[in-house]
Amino acid sequence: MISDDLRDIVGERHCLTDTALRASYETDWTRRFSGSALAVVRPGSAKEVAAILRACVSAGVGVVPQGGNTGLVGGSVPRGGEVVLSLLRLNEVGNVDPDAGEVTVGAGATLASVQAAARAAGWEVGVDLGARDSATIGGMVATNAGGVNVLRHGPMRRQILGFEAVMADGTILRRLPGMPKDNTGYDLGALLAGSEGTLAVITQVRLRLVSRLAHRAVAVAGFENATLAVAAAARLRRELGSVLALELFTDAGMELVMRHASVAAPFSARRPAYLLIEAGSDERDPTDGLVAALEAFELGDAAVVASDPGGRHRLWQLRERHTEAVNAEGVPHKLDVSVPLARYAEMVDRAPVVVTAVDEGARTIVYGHVGDGNVHVNVLGPSADDEQVDDAVLELVLELGGSVSAEHGIGVAKVDWLVRDRGEDAVDAMRAIKAAWDPDGILNPGVLFRP
Amino acid sequence: MISDDLRDIVGERHCLTDTALRASYETDWTRRFSGSALAVVRPGSAKEVAAILRACVSAGVGVVPQGGNTGLVGGSVPRGGEVVLSLLRLNEVGNVDPDAGEVTVGAGATLASVQAAARAAGWEVGVDLGARDSATIGGMVATNAGGVNVLRHGPMRRQILGFEAVMADGTILRRLPGMPKDNTGYDLGALLAGSEGTLAVITQVRLRLVSRLAHRAVAVAGFENATLAVAAAARLRRELGSVLALELFTDAGMELVMRHASVAAPFSARRPAYLLIEAGSDERDPTDGLVAALEAFELGDAAVVASDPGGRHRLWQLRERHTEAVNAEGVPHKLDVSVPLARYAEMVDRAPVVVTAVDEGARTIVYGHVGDGNVHVNVLGPSADDEQVDDAVLELVLELGGSVSAEHGIGVAKVDWLVRDRGEDAVDAMRAIKAAWDPDGILNPGVLFRP
Repeated sequence: MISDDLRDIVGERHCLTDTALRASYETDWTRRFSGSALAVVRPGSAKEVAAILRACVSAGVGVVPQGGNTGLVGGSVPRGGEVVLSLLRLNEVGNVDPDAGEVTVGAGATLASVQAAARAAGWEVGVDLGARDSATIGGMVATNAGGVNVLRHGPMRRQILGFEAVMADGTILRRLPGMPKDNTGYDLGALLAGSEGTLAVITQVRLRLVSRLAHRAVAVAGFENATLAVAAAARLRRELGSVLALELFTDAGMELVMRHASVAAPFSARRPAYLLIEAGSDERDPTDGLVAALEAFELGDAAVVASDPGGRHRLWQLRERHTEAVNAEGVPHKLDVSVPLARYAEMVDRAPVVVTAVDEGARTIVYGHVGDGNVHVNVLGPSADDEQVDDAVLELVLELGGSVSAEHGIGVAKVDWLVRDRGEDAVDAMRAIKAAWDPDGILNPGVLFRP
Repeated sequence: MISDDLRDIVGERHCLTDTALRASYETDWTRRFSGSALAVVRPGSAKEVAAILRACVSAGVGVVPQGGNTGLVGGSVPRGGEVVLSLLRLNEVGNVDPDAGEVTVGAGATLASVQAAARAAGWEVGVDLGARDSATIGGMVATNAGGVNVLRHGPMRRQILGFEAVMADGTILRRLPGMPKDNTGYDLGALLAGSEGTLAVITQVRLRLVSRLAHRAVAVAGFENATLAVAAAARLRRELGSVLALELFTDAGMELVMRHASVAAPFSARRPAYLLIEAGSDERDPTDGLVAALEAFELGDAAVVASDPGGRHRLWQLRERHTEAVNAEGVPHKLDVSVPLARYAEMVDRAPVVVTAVDEGARTIVYGHVGDGNVHVNVLGPSADDEQVDDAVLELVLELGGSVSAEHGIGVAKVDWLVRDRGEDAVDAMRAIKAAWDPDGILNPGVLFRP
């Protein structure tokens, strides 16, 4: 009996088969995806992960690796009958190498805990995102998480110096600590990043850290339309070398944030589109440069800059609390896509239009990381299983030459869209790798590929 | 007959079977690796590449993709009887997108030609290296080339936004232009980067570009030993955010550069170890910050800073002309390795010792990118086919927990070392991918894996 085997491997306490105990592992935080697990196991080591995988191969049972469960595409909750493999106990954060700026962490360590360790040693993690208190490093690598600093430091794939991962047959691959320059064969770490638990289970990661910037400034600026905001973002990215983040949101989103998150407007003037710009430097205060750059856009009262931590935090709240504000209005359809920069404004403008065309009553809140083409489209109104609006938005993305998933991946939600976006040939090439590494198809079945 | 088929595909002019015409394609620039090709073909399109690969699969003939032939590990020259597939005709450089900072280029475009196009549009290529006039973008991606700016911008893998590549069965994978954030399945571009022509033939690449820095300063500083130089590098990397490059070389190397490349000493004092530091900013001159940072090391006369283009170029010559100066003394054994930063000085100090232990008369010139752990070990004296010194250096690398290839890859030269460095399990995992994509093993046979 597979649950007996699992219990033997991880111990009674860490093999959850009781319905009530399983529940929190079976539904993702958006409440949109859920399924019943055969059991939830919480291994305490890579060896236990290996034994679990071997047991599941023998029993022909699928395995769903799970970190902080903060994804949007249903990739970390069971579809029905799988074993959920929670990595949360592998949460050790190693010593930061203060000279090299590197740290080895367990897959289950939260981003916030690694950030704390990095900062204590005078460094910073290259990726930051709103779900930092829940999102785990393993999950962030598995989904190649992006966040607000991709423009400057790249996504999670770029932060990996080394890794430990367990293959479906129980083989433990380990390359720790790993070197910043290491050209010894295929970059298996880069392959695992974004593989969404379908190739191997990540158990440890060696991260490169980035310089902690001594000086930062944040601005919010209002524009008459998305086209002007995007053009300003492109110019700032090119001319202001200290730019760390370029975020766009609209007045509809700000309205919700003010209502549900009690955040004050940045200035009295209201504009259809806003840019949040963060600039940073470790040598001097970037405030003057940021102010000067913004003056060129002649925005009048619709711009504000903050250099003090409190003021910067308040401005960031306008952007970061979108998620929570949208959730307060209902269960949203959340689509995380990217388009070429030249089509970004068109995407922002047309997303609400294509949504309304298929569902008159739906409300669309758009925001995103304009610096790297990433748009988050949130749709309120349609029921959770109504995929019409999702399809309408993704059709638009393909029309604009974009990607159906920017940073959250394919999961189970976008499996058919993966084929439409990338084409049969590319998906076949991916499937060949999947088949080579996981011939029995036990790792996260239903994710990325239709079984 | 395979050569008739090839001639039909690319045309008479571009299928070279004559010994004299083939010669320059059959030996790499180090003169250490060479072999005889069945033919050299120079396709003009991805379709022709696909047809060539299909013909070679049918005939059971291996294919050696070749770019600028500037590698160090014999990965781009025939081992004997293969078809050399030169990508040099695919050298188109597309229009730079001035807002997004992106450009699509053919695999055969040289780095220098892409740099020229990027600069004309106000941008810069993220990777730079001494062989820029010969090295091609396709070869640089295939080997995941690094160079002097990896510290700041990452290696070639990090610059790829999209790609076009031809699989062994002639399938053309194409993802152009590609988005900075794109999580649609496995990152096939990241997998191809560093795959050394064993998985597919890269025909086009979409590159992200980076900001062109308006202000730069270069310093050279002398230290009493490698330990002090490496400690200074670590501190500069951490405290001076504007650092772009941190290069180390020794007095033995500088002596050769002065002799063969007619480059003047940076200052009259001679020291056992030197650091070259480049700092850059697009907002202000980094010279004062660099001078202030160097003063902390109390180097006396053994430091110089240049801010003007001519002065910066002269200082860079001290580092960049090492290759040429070493070659002027003989055919070197060139080992490109990396070690954790904490062992870098030990590597610099011990490399000459382990070399002399196996070959008393050998001379060892060490230099490298200390910012990212990369050490280039050049050994003069031993004959080309004497692998004793190579083995001694690579043993030392493994002892120090390093990587046997930092930026040039495995090629044919380090095939056995790949297994020793990464272990059987990791190499088996790589072989599984190779077998899935190239079941007949026609793509660069003998590279990465023993046939």
